[in-house]
Amino acid sequence: MPAHEPSSSAAAAPHFDANATRYPAEDLHAYAAALLEAAGARDDIARDTASVLLDGDLMGHTTHGLALLPGYLQALCDGSMRSSGEPTTMASSAGTQTWDGHRLPGPWLTLRALDAACEIASSQGSGTVVIRRSHHIGCLAAYAKRAAERGVMTIVCCIDPATCSVAPFGAITSVFTPNPLAAGIPTSGDPILLDISASYTTNGMTMRLFKNQQMLPQPWIQDAKGTPTHDPAVLFNEPPGTLLPLGGLEAGHKGYALALLIEALTAGLAGHGRADAAEGWGATVFVQVLDPAAFGGRAAFDRQMDWLVDACHDATPRPGGAPVRLPGERALRLHREQSERGVALYHEIMPALVQWAAKLGVDVPRPA
Amino acid sequence: MPAHEPSSSAAAAPHFDANATRYPAEDLHAYAAALLEAAGARDDIARDTASVLLDGDLMGHTTHGLALLPGYLQALCDGSMRSSGEPTTMASSAGTQTWDGHRLPGPWLTLRALDAACEIASSQGSGTVVIRRSHHIGCLAAYAKRAAERGVMTIVCCIDPATCSVAPFGAITSVFTPNPLAAGIPTSGDPILLDISASYTTNGMTMRLFKNQQMLPQPWIQDAKGTPTHDPAVLFNEPPGTLLPLGGLEAGHKGYALALLIEALTAGLAGHGRADAAEGWGATVFVQVLDPAAFGGRAAFDRQMDWLVDACHDATPRPGGAPVRLPGERALRLHREQSERGVALYHEIMPALVQWAAKLGVDVPRPA
Repeated sequence: MPAHEPSSSAAAAPHFDANATRYPAEDLHAYAAALLEAAGARDDIARDTASVLLDGDLMGHTTHGLALLPGYLQALCDGSMRSSGEPTTMASSAGTQTWDGHRLPGPWLTLRALDAACEIASSQGSGTVVIRRSHHIGCLAAYAKRAAERGVMTIVCCIDPATCSVAPFGAITSVFTPNPLAAGIPTSGDPILLDISASYTTNGMTMRLFKNQQMLPQPWIQDAKGTPTHDPAVLFNEPPGTLLPLGGLEAGHKGYALALLIEALTAGLAGHGRADAAEGWGATVFVQVLDPAAFGGRAAFDRQMDWLVDACHDATPRPGGAPVRLPGERALRLHREQSERGVALYHEIMPALVQWAAKLGVDVPRPA
Repeated sequence: MPAHEPSSSAAAAPHFDANATRYPAEDLHAYAAALLEAAGARDDIARDTASVLLDGDLMGHTTHGLALLPGYLQALCDGSMRSSGEPTTMASSAGTQTWDGHRLPGPWLTLRALDAACEIASSQGSGTVVIRRSHHIGCLAAYAKRAAERGVMTIVCCIDPATCSVAPFGAITSVFTPNPLAAGIPTSGDPILLDISASYTTNGMTMRLFKNQQMLPQPWIQDAKGTPTHDPAVLFNEPPGTLLPLGGLEAGHKGYALALLIEALTAGLAGHGRADAAEGWGATVFVQVLDPAAFGGRAAFDRQMDWLVDACHDATPRPGGAPVRLPGERALRLHREQSERGVALYHEIMPALVQWAAKLGVDVPRPA
């Protein structure tokens, strides 16, 4: 391991640029919702999907916010994303539900699953909803934030069964997607919001770096022969390279194990995944809510988590390093600041949306 | 990241030596149970605790099997581990229970929690039991294996709130224990058994290497100034070094996030942890069972997981590398082989137990 300092900006909030052109958050929301509606989405679906995508940008996750909207619009237009309808309940028990999402927009479906899981948890202590055949669900931290605001703990994870780019530990061909895992943990102050993947880096980030002819900050991927590299171009060669599991060549059995756990929680429980014919860009989703009130109580929960927040803040930073942050701390600060001052939209996003606005006859918002 | 090949033997089954002196598994179980009973443990508690510890050795996890028994015996003798009694239910809902473990032996408590979680899951779809004030719980993979044999999926994780050795990302002082996370995932064949920690390495492993003046296979720890090193001695200096979170200096925000998630599931939900006065070696425990039958069905679950097992086995290995294994595959092979041929006990274990056998008047088993 080279003795580099943590590059948390690359790791935690890729490519956020405070100097980028800012747009009022409410205007961006209305714009995104109008585009989705013009592409056919039902109005409530359009509003919720726009809201979750915008949360990605508000929190500084610039690859998982409105950068995804052109892909969503394309999918609505070509029919690979459903524009209206409801999920079907395939199975249910007192504490669990299994839905078929019929390829409806993932942000809308996942918010409905979060509502249902909260409702179940309010009487059962925990509630679990899995969704097969959802479309893509956007930035998972957005759900963690909303659940924490309701005073419950939540875990959200997903896979995309239609594609793969992450190698099992010891392999040079891929089986998994990065399989993100997010959690929202309430405290008496700001919640802890974590959003990690079982691989070092993601498809969205490597694709953006490749397009811009940039390098990864660390050799988090390997070429088709298994040589670790910083260069995302190896993923687009034939045969393609692969993303390394978290832990890499030395301890990648841990990232690999995490990837399999997330496959079991999603595809296993939902009964739909890589064993089925690919239906295109989409997701199999797991949403679980745990209500602290049903366990040791909310006050006792907060007491433990507040203690940890303080202990992490009080930990001695690396020599010359920044103070220790909690997961989600920077994202929540950016969310507040950008909600007020306008969203510093990653420079590639608006030009891509303007083309769709012209095509769909939607007005483009003006900078703040 | 240096381009070393995976050292899976070091990572997955530390220090297992097939040529070590072998003892019949049933004799070792009777021996461990007799020692625990002689130290005061109630007979059923002694048997279950012996069984879980032996599972650690059977699966090749030589730091988390009978190597722990001298510590358990000492704790029974000095009263810091309770020898009999029952857990108290502090809170319960239809899908969840919160117990005070009264510092009873963790393996016995955790097996009871697994029973309760399975019972809840059979009617609710999922069951969650958290335990505050358990004593140490041994090798988590042992619970994952037993749950998978019942055809359900389980997640077990724990912390030891009385101690800390793992640094938050960006820090050089510690807040966490390695916070292990295990899961048992049934398939139509052998289950997938994963057992990882939020740090690269564990207290047990670094302690053993330090005692034997050996080095870690990778610089998975840092000295008190934050310099990564292979040398476990830095953990025993004053001020002490710390274990690095999974992902290390570059991507340790992921291991750090995992550590916090496990703190929330254990200390947060149980309402007891680092915010409380330390009571000595122990654990706060989370056990969750998810019944595939309540979701998409067991057959659909198996179909997805079997597909993944085959896909991982079929992935192309690294040049010159071994075929890709599933988590738990080697452990289950060792379990079967050692159950039959005798347990190749790590060489330091029997000499330590013999001293206790003499003190407690228990017969020592003969090699196989």
